[in-house]
Amino acid sequence: MDYREAGVDISAADAAKQRIKRLARGTFNPGVLSEIGSFGGLFRPDFASYQEPVLVSSTDGVGTKIQVARLMGVHDTVGYDLVAHCVNDILVQGASPLFFLDYLALGRMDPDRVEAVVSGVTRACQEFGCPLVGGETAEMPGTYADDDYDLAGFIVGVVERGKALPAGVSAGDALLGLPSAGLHTNGYSLARQALFAKAGHQAATVLPELGTSIGAALLAPHKSYLAALEGLIERGRIRALAHITGGGFPGNIPRVLPDGLGAVVRRGSWEVPPLFRLIQAAGEVPDDEMFRTFNMGVGMIVVVAPGDLHEVEHSLERRGEPSFLIGSVVEGPGVTFE
Amino acid sequence: MDYREAGVDISAADAAKQRIKRLARGTFNPGVLSEIGSFGGLFRPDFASYQEPVLVSSTDGVGTKIQVARLMGVHDTVGYDLVAHCVNDILVQGASPLFFLDYLALGRMDPDRVEAVVSGVTRACQEFGCPLVGGETAEMPGTYADDDYDLAGFIVGVVERGKALPAGVSAGDALLGLPSAGLHTNGYSLARQALFAKAGHQAATVLPELGTSIGAALLAPHKSYLAALEGLIERGRIRALAHITGGGFPGNIPRVLPDGLGAVVRRGSWEVPPLFRLIQAAGEVPDDEMFRTFNMGVGMIVVVAPGDLHEVEHSLERRGEPSFLIGSVVEGPGVTFE
Repeated sequence: MDYREAGVDISAADAAKQRIKRLARGTFNPGVLSEIGSFGGLFRPDFASYQEPVLVSSTDGVGTKIQVARLMGVHDTVGYDLVAHCVNDILVQGASPLFFLDYLALGRMDPDRVEAVVSGVTRACQEFGCPLVGGETAEMPGTYADDDYDLAGFIVGVVERGKALPAGVSAGDALLGLPSAGLHTNGYSLARQALFAKAGHQAATVLPELGTSIGAALLAPHKSYLAALEGLIERGRIRALAHITGGGFPGNIPRVLPDGLGAVVRRGSWEVPPLFRLIQAAGEVPDDEMFRTFNMGVGMIVVVAPGDLHEVEHSLERRGEPSFLIGSVVEGPGVTFE
Repeated sequence: MDYREAGVDISAADAAKQRIKRLARGTFNPGVLSEIGSFGGLFRPDFASYQEPVLVSSTDGVGTKIQVARLMGVHDTVGYDLVAHCVNDILVQGASPLFFLDYLALGRMDPDRVEAVVSGVTRACQEFGCPLVGGETAEMPGTYADDDYDLAGFIVGVVERGKALPAGVSAGDALLGLPSAGLHTNGYSLARQALFAKAGHQAATVLPELGTSIGAALLAPHKSYLAALEGLIERGRIRALAHITGGGFPGNIPRVLPDGLGAVVRRGSWEVPPLFRLIQAAGEVPDDEMFRTFNMGVGMIVVVAPGDLHEVEHSLERRGEPSFLIGSVVEGPGVTFE
């Protein structure tokens, strides 16, 4: 017997590793001191301009969006999603990315599949200035179906301690919603159940209100708000950010509010995109369940002092970023919808 | 329809999160500035004693050792394995741990299962002085069987740039082998195939040569070499370390040798533990395949200049750490067995 008979193909793993190495190299900046393939990734941070640098780290997956990727045979976008999601998570604390690592586990080591996924990771790493310094690619027959896989990402960034968010959130602060690009990376188990299992739609079905197929709409890449928000954070114009991920509005807004404060969100203050309405109708999902599962078209909520609202809206507009005034911070806990 | 009908239980996730929060708090040190549950973990590094701090990061999983954990109904040790593996990976670069994050994906969100796994993670985090500052726990019905899960870890450490390993490896350097505690976290697909599928053993079968059941022997926790080696690294007595993980001897020793240098390993210079001999016999696995799949009883190889060998052996002995002189660095690439 050998390892291959046990379902683990070391030659395929070596081939995949070479492709990852090449892709990762395209993300490197002068801080990276190691090649992919060493036991640890070496990154020399430049903290010269920081008084008290704080490292901010986060990990996330892309959930069952991978099952939509499999249906569509498109595997690079979930790689992009992974990085964009993690970048947003540390942006919420005010941090800029330093470096990224990924974990990819597959039922069968397919170098083409690995390359597709990782090419999405590295495309996003380049876009966000966040080198891919390491990763793990594991063949796990038995845990994953032959054609299936899972993907997790890890990011490290930095923030000046005095500029870390949230900070200074008060009752009366405005909530600005920034549009999402789709479901981002949450709610896919419910969306698939409603659209495919219950309503009997096919992934390839093109619907006029979506302007594309259901599968393509579901695969729309997770949007990062780094470019839109980093200048405003640097200038101290933002009090808090809430990344609307798993748990939706009630699960994420309270995470960045001080004890005793809550939020009022006016549901009619932005237009919920057609994909969410389609899922809601297909699954007969109550409003409350929609808002605690999905981002409903709002990928990031920006908490702004009333006096800074005009400047923030104007700055976003100049960058071509739409925003909606969707509510405000109020006394008393929790999220209330109007 | 709601999220629960789609197989995702937000209440169970909340319950699991509370238990993780409590466990993680027990790992915190003064560097940790955030609670579990924020979007990113905040860690303020103390680099006052460093001239040029380099961040060293690594990610890994525990592979199909999880399938043995399921057979035995024991889920804390794989959590411990995860941290010990990652600590060893950055130790190879000369780094000490700063903080850790974990990713746990399950077919069904079972708070007891989550708590068991994470309790192993946090026990190891405490032992290695490496706070758990964040993580993700994802319920992914369909990707994982109801009772199945996968686990990935992510570590960040620091090394003074001038003390990063490997450094100065030369032909004639000695290779010291440090004993492993078992299979650590590699080769489980082959081991399970050989022992269970081919030889028909049961996990609960107690064998005299193992002194315990096959399942318990397979689950023996991954050993970390941090305590044994950090002082020697600090004093500049080690030129390189090779963590013997996936790929075994030929896959890992060359990763830390300069181009043009290789290694000669004398197979008879240490006693291969009974578990490896049992797997080899059960699966009729050739010697070469054993050495490129398993650690064969040597979990870490220490590359030492001949002049430092006595001091290193003596230091390890004083700490109660056995070591074997298993070979040397030679001109010419690859790993040759004698």
